[in-house]
Amino acid sequence: MTDREERSKKVTRRNFLKATGGAAALGMLGGIVGPTEAFAATAGVPKKWDQTCDVLVVGSGFAGFAAALEAKSAGADAVIIEKMPLYGGNSIINGGDFGAAGTQMQKEMGVEDSPELMLKDMLKAGAYLNHVELAKTVAYGSKDALEWSTNFCGAKFTRLNFHGGHSVRRSHQTENASGSGLIGKMMSKSKELGIKVMLRTKMVRFVVDKNGRIAGIEARTGYSFPDEKSGKPAFIRARKAVVLTSGGFSYDVALRQVHDPRLTDRFDSTNHSGATGEALLAACQAGAMDVQMDWIQLGPWTSPDEKGFGVVPLFCERLVGFGPMLNPATAKRFIKETGDRKVRADAIVLIGHPVVILGDSYAVQKQVVPAALEKGLANGAIKKFDTLEALARAYDIAFGPFMEEINKWNSYVEKKKDPEFDCMIFPDARPTAAPPFYAARLWPRVHHTMGGLVINKEAQVIGFDMKPIKGLYAAGEVTGGVHGAVRLGSVAMADCVVFGRIAGTNAAKEKA
Amino acid sequence: MTDREERSKKVTRRNFLKATGGAAALGMLGGIVGPTEAFAATAGVPKKWDQTCDVLVVGSGFAGFAAALEAKSAGADAVIIEKMPLYGGNSIINGGDFGAAGTQMQKEMGVEDSPELMLKDMLKAGAYLNHVELAKTVAYGSKDALEWSTNFCGAKFTRLNFHGGHSVRRSHQTENASGSGLIGKMMSKSKELGIKVMLRTKMVRFVVDKNGRIAGIEARTGYSFPDEKSGKPAFIRARKAVVLTSGGFSYDVALRQVHDPRLTDRFDSTNHSGATGEALLAACQAGAMDVQMDWIQLGPWTSPDEKGFGVVPLFCERLVGFGPMLNPATAKRFIKETGDRKVRADAIVLIGHPVVILGDSYAVQKQVVPAALEKGLANGAIKKFDTLEALARAYDIAFGPFMEEINKWNSYVEKKKDPEFDCMIFPDARPTAAPPFYAARLWPRVHHTMGGLVINKEAQVIGFDMKPIKGLYAAGEVTGGVHGAVRLGSVAMADCVVFGRIAGTNAAKEKA
Repeated sequence: MTDREERSKKVTRRNFLKATGGAAALGMLGGIVGPTEAFAATAGVPKKWDQTCDVLVVGSGFAGFAAALEAKSAGADAVIIEKMPLYGGNSIINGGDFGAAGTQMQKEMGVEDSPELMLKDMLKAGAYLNHVELAKTVAYGSKDALEWSTNFCGAKFTRLNFHGGHSVRRSHQTENASGSGLIGKMMSKSKELGIKVMLRTKMVRFVVDKNGRIAGIEARTGYSFPDEKSGKPAFIRARKAVVLTSGGFSYDVALRQVHDPRLTDRFDSTNHSGATGEALLAACQAGAMDVQMDWIQLGPWTSPDEKGFGVVPLFCERLVGFGPMLNPATAKRFIKETGDRKVRADAIVLIGHPVVILGDSYAVQKQVVPAALEKGLANGAIKKFDTLEALARAYDIAFGPFMEEINKWNSYVEKKKDPEFDCMIFPDARPTAAPPFYAARLWPRVHHTMGGLVINKEAQVIGFDMKPIKGLYAAGEVTGGVHGAVRLGSVAMADCVVFGRIAGTNAAKEKA
Repeated sequence: MTDREERSKKVTRRNFLKATGGAAALGMLGGIVGPTEAFAATAGVPKKWDQTCDVLVVGSGFAGFAAALEAKSAGADAVIIEKMPLYGGNSIINGGDFGAAGTQMQKEMGVEDSPELMLKDMLKAGAYLNHVELAKTVAYGSKDALEWSTNFCGAKFTRLNFHGGHSVRRSHQTENASGSGLIGKMMSKSKELGIKVMLRTKMVRFVVDKNGRIAGIEARTGYSFPDEKSGKPAFIRARKAVVLTSGGFSYDVALRQVHDPRLTDRFDSTNHSGATGEALLAACQAGAMDVQMDWIQLGPWTSPDEKGFGVVPLFCERLVGFGPMLNPATAKRFIKETGDRKVRADAIVLIGHPVVILGDSYAVQKQVVPAALEKGLANGAIKKFDTLEALARAYDIAFGPFMEEINKWNSYVEKKKDPEFDCMIFPDARPTAAPPFYAARLWPRVHHTMGGLVINKEAQVIGFDMKPIKGLYAAGEVTGGVHGAVRLGSVAMADCVVFGRIAGTNAAKEKA
């Protein structure tokens, strides 16, 4: 089943819940199950386990595979469960850029870098809310994690990219420019080592033994996302530990609205549809502490006229500083077009409806990658117009005020100075005047959830009593604190591989 | 079996664990008591209750008294417990300004206001992270809450103040310019109505009955803050409900560092010393969900050279826009002096040591309230110098660079324009040149914790299962979501009285 098919199924369930009006508290929909399907927060040890392993990994993204591979390498019997019909979670649709500092490739390309500098960049982007020891663990472990991904897993990184917020080029791109370039290799390696990957197996709640230790989980096998009644209950024992690598909650509307109430179901997500927060909440119900859950990153560059990440982000990000961004309802600009993600997304959310970015033929030809333009024109998310009048008409912008605003923008471009919003106007920008004109609508999508479970640098999950929960580890987007307020591009892969490996290694060391 | 029932089974098991000494597990060790006194996160119903009431209120600030007074007025037997030797919590040292919209006093003074406008201000200040229904409940309930405080409690509000971030003057000041002006009246009213206020009684953990409902608490009576071994255990039954109004966690260094790791013990607080978060954490251990805990407000205007709130904030806030603020290590300005609390505090935290604000005799005489200046000079937090050289020497600022910076600042003042940091230079500001000169060191203090427990507009506490926890209400600073990212000055009183009253009223309606 494709991502889109899954998503449309999910939407159906949501609509059903909405129709039944089963949203009691805070106007929220049930995140996990419907309102009548109450079930206990944690389970006691069952009379009979359906299955037993040493280390049970929940989730099959970068962090999950890294944990399972390390646990297995250390001699533990590791099993991965994945609720979706496909392995890879959000990692498999990730852009495939791995941020790492002081690597061989950087040296070959003459890029001077260090873990100290990477840490500095992470803390600055994170508004210094990062749990410093965690961020440090990622920055200082990134080179080794990249080498392990290459040497042990067999992934190939063939390009060095630059991402905003990094001081230097340190984003190592997989040969297929996708996270699947690493996930596929991890899956092959797991097969080779005999790690069992159970698809369509959803974690429901934790099992706590009589010593208060996480002993395993209750799951549903044969589960068909998002049908919460599908599949059968199964108790899976983890003799050593459970490693939670279940990802973020970008697609969990109810949960994200608790933490950022603006993010209603009017906001789609760039994530795979399984990015819901029920495993995270199950951990909190077992005593785990959550942190910085309200830092939810929106991409301000997505279009409501195409699905997923799409191509409009590529169009938008190359046009800013060359063409204006307007609120169609007022025909006015509203924000510094070259401002950061958060500033722009917040402004669009406040406006409450999609905005328009536009550029003339000079700007578009000069800046936008032809393949992206072509694809956007083909899927209808980017439109082409012979005149500005036709453009204004198409987006229902009052033409008189629109031309006033365009003329004002053009006067700023000529002076290379925007006294209104301080947009960075590039030296080679020209007034928006040469037909044809291109435009796209923008409406933000939820892109990453920085918050999650509190962990220490050993990847142990910390409880509300401030102490590690026995038998429970976590890594990747389900955890919080590594990135603080803002995750930098390409640091997700580093975070997942570094902490996934730590979690797997430590889980394997636990007494059975 | 319901979630709560299941949880209470778990609780029973936990008690077993406790008895058998099977201590360390799953959020079961006390962050509350010393490390050797392991005890369970929640307790089961004891064989014998030491005390019984209908509505048990934890905390004796505005919210606690409001809850108890309403519960009692509705016919319930209400008891307040307070861990400190004095009642009033942080409320009694509050400035006594009560934000309310559309009041009689506003009308008399010709101030046009409305709940809609107050809500708008709250949402804007809150960066739109507010739980809108909660903020709305406060804004729309503020006038009634103020009238209740006056007519029912007997408090007098005699002045209308303006606070930053509000569109109009709506901060109604108690006659003694302190929260004690309301707390004292609430205490008298409580005595009159026969509400028992138990001082030195600390909540330790929640008691959950076999139906999964909060049945009461385990407390320590005769407790002597902060000695966790003082006092004796006592089980207090709440036949109807427990109302948690235990305040914020500004003084809980460990907890605030989880959510904002910058806030080490180098940062003091403007709060009373009992503003620690153990009751909040006890609620989370009983399944309550927390939200926006990382929004911790720092006051950038406090001095390390005096205690508590002090007088330097009054010196600093009147001088900005008239004199420069410098980093003594570089002799340079570093931030827009007239920027908001967060911008300034973040900048000083990043510098990592106290900074200096200064003004000449013209600025200080014109702007600073004489009584504040006198007090600051007397306690040594404000210093007076005959020359700028003496000032630089006193704060260990290199004199050459210092004079360069002063001259630059003075040139901006003359032009009434700061091209560097965009400080708002007031029309009647003059160059810093007329001796004597006055200065004070600034180092931020933790002032308010915006985050806390998730509640709905009925003041019910919401659990990690997204459903209300039976028998548990909360109000005031222990809750989160009302204020979003930033609480506006004077809205704390409104929040506490509005939601305290709702919590008390609803708690009294519960079946015994």
